[in-house]
Amino acid sequence: MSRYFTEDDSVATVNARMGDHIDPRLRQVMASLVRHLHAFAKDVELRQEEWDLAIDFLTATGRICSDERQEFILLSDVLGFSMLVDAINNRRPQGATENTVFGPFHVDGAPELEMGANISLDGKGERCLFFGKVVDLRGRPVEGARLDLWSDNADGYYDVQQPDVQPKWNNRGVFTTGPDGLYRFYGIKPVSYPIPDDGPVGKMLASLGRHPYRPAHMHYLVTAPGFQKIVTHTFVAEDDYLDSDTVFGVKETLIASFERVDDGDAVWRSQFDFVMTPEQEVAA
Amino acid sequence: MSRYFTEDDSVATVNARMGDHIDPRLRQVMASLVRHLHAFAKDVELRQEEWDLAIDFLTATGRICSDERQEFILLSDVLGFSMLVDAINNRRPQGATENTVFGPFHVDGAPELEMGANISLDGKGERCLFFGKVVDLRGRPVEGARLDLWSDNADGYYDVQQPDVQPKWNNRGVFTTGPDGLYRFYGIKPVSYPIPDDGPVGKMLASLGRHPYRPAHMHYLVTAPGFQKIVTHTFVAEDDYLDSDTVFGVKETLIASFERVDDGDAVWRSQFDFVMTPEQEVAA
Ligand SMILES: [Fe+2]
Ligand SMILES: [Fe+2]
Repeated sequence: MSRYFTEDDSVATVNARMGDHIDPRLRQVMASLVRHLHAFAKDVELRQEEWDLAIDFLTATGRICSDERQEFILLSDVLGFSMLVDAINNRRPQGATENTVFGPFHVDGAPELEMGANISLDGKGERCLFFGKVVDLRGRPVEGARLDLWSDNADGYYDVQQPDVQPKWNNRGVFTTGPDGLYRFYGIKPVSYPIPDDGPVGKMLASLGRHPYRPAHMHYLVTAPGFQKIVTHTFVAEDDYLDSDTVFGVKETLIASFERVDDGDAVWRSQFDFVMTPEQEVAA
Repeated sequence: MSRYFTEDDSVATVNARMGDHIDPRLRQVMASLVRHLHAFAKDVELRQEEWDLAIDFLTATGRICSDERQEFILLSDVLGFSMLVDAINNRRPQGATENTVFGPFHVDGAPELEMGANISLDGKGERCLFFGKVVDLRGRPVEGARLDLWSDNADGYYDVQQPDVQPKWNNRGVFTTGPDGLYRFYGIKPVSYPIPDDGPVGKMLASLGRHPYRPAHMHYLVTAPGFQKIVTHTFVAEDDYLDSDTVFGVKETLIASFERVDDGDAVWRSQFDFVMTPEQEVAA
């Protein structure tokens, strides 16, 4: 290795600079990051003016971040990086409910409701009965499973995106299973929506010839003592964007049927069973 | 390839999403970026909480950026990425003066001075005569070469870092060669200094067991009609940080001797010749 920086030895030179007594995991992660970033620049022979654009892009991405908006997460999402990290960290046995992206719109503290309650408080959208059971890998009911769930409204917005619109907690609720593991609640059939696309990430998507839409979905955060946390959605079957979710969140097993019933009680019914994985178990 | 996102096919899935009619270079660069970023995550099996930290880091890096401070450039610098991009874009024939990082402290509009003028206006530091010639690859003098040069002051700060300290344009100047290609000016022997290390990049350096110092150097931006722009420094030989420049800017050929003379005129003399490369010429 050269004593000073050279194009050929760039990775070794940078990584040799780390101290002897640093956290070994940090060393491993940073060494790999440097290796892959340098390989990228060499691979495409990155031009100086492209680097300038990248710096401007990152700066603009930072500038638009606020308490209500996380443009770096959006960037990670649209590059498939969030889904990849989620996949790596949540490998589960066949048959277990899969994870997908958490998204930025979860809020702690949603109302705890009785089974059968209605989370749609604004009277808009098509009423839908959501039901099913929470079971373990052998199909046994999971008692005390907590389903924290949220969806957009009929206009495609989460309540946190419209802080001035009442009522509060529209399309959010928390339900806890009893000994039978069953759950049941009313909401609306979710609608597809664009991710916030008026910032740098939206501009990037446009220049890549990509749309900013997500297929309609209901978010779930399912927890129970002794089981792995499930962060997932159910997707509305037959949505136009199922094959082109801009954040790559769709998985085959998460597509739920939405059956039109129009039975006076609701317009739609959607059944989905959650299969929980024991805390220590991983995919074979 | 799977229809939906999978860990194995993550790169292909993301890159297949780009439109058919986008800029081909953008397609190439983004496809490579996605490939290398995903390879990084897979390589280290990036943990969810590490991703969280990375998002926080990028957000903090964005937050500290201002008109006076560019933390993303600093980040690129300390990862050796800026030097790598510079190297890729400025491959030159043997014997030509090499580039190094531009840095964030250049200012347009510095005073145009006569050869032999003094750029040190605050009376601090050790007076030094800088001299040499600007030549082409065959050693012929380059007439009309413009040397835009700047250094820190005796305390290790550039004037733009201390906007309230007078006089203005301290340790900056622009000189233009005549038919003999010679240049000559007085300044101070530059001193080593830390890059701004009170932000996220400084914290990162600390956790990597790295110091934030740059070896002492004089910045030069040398331009002449028909020749490639040279963005470089001369480094003070024997500086303690030559082997550990935190931005990896040092190259063997850029280390200049600083000879102590104490001749009443100056304490030091430093000679350096700039060898310019024709516009279209690249390294063999
Ligand atoms: Fe969502
Ligand atoms: Fe500098």
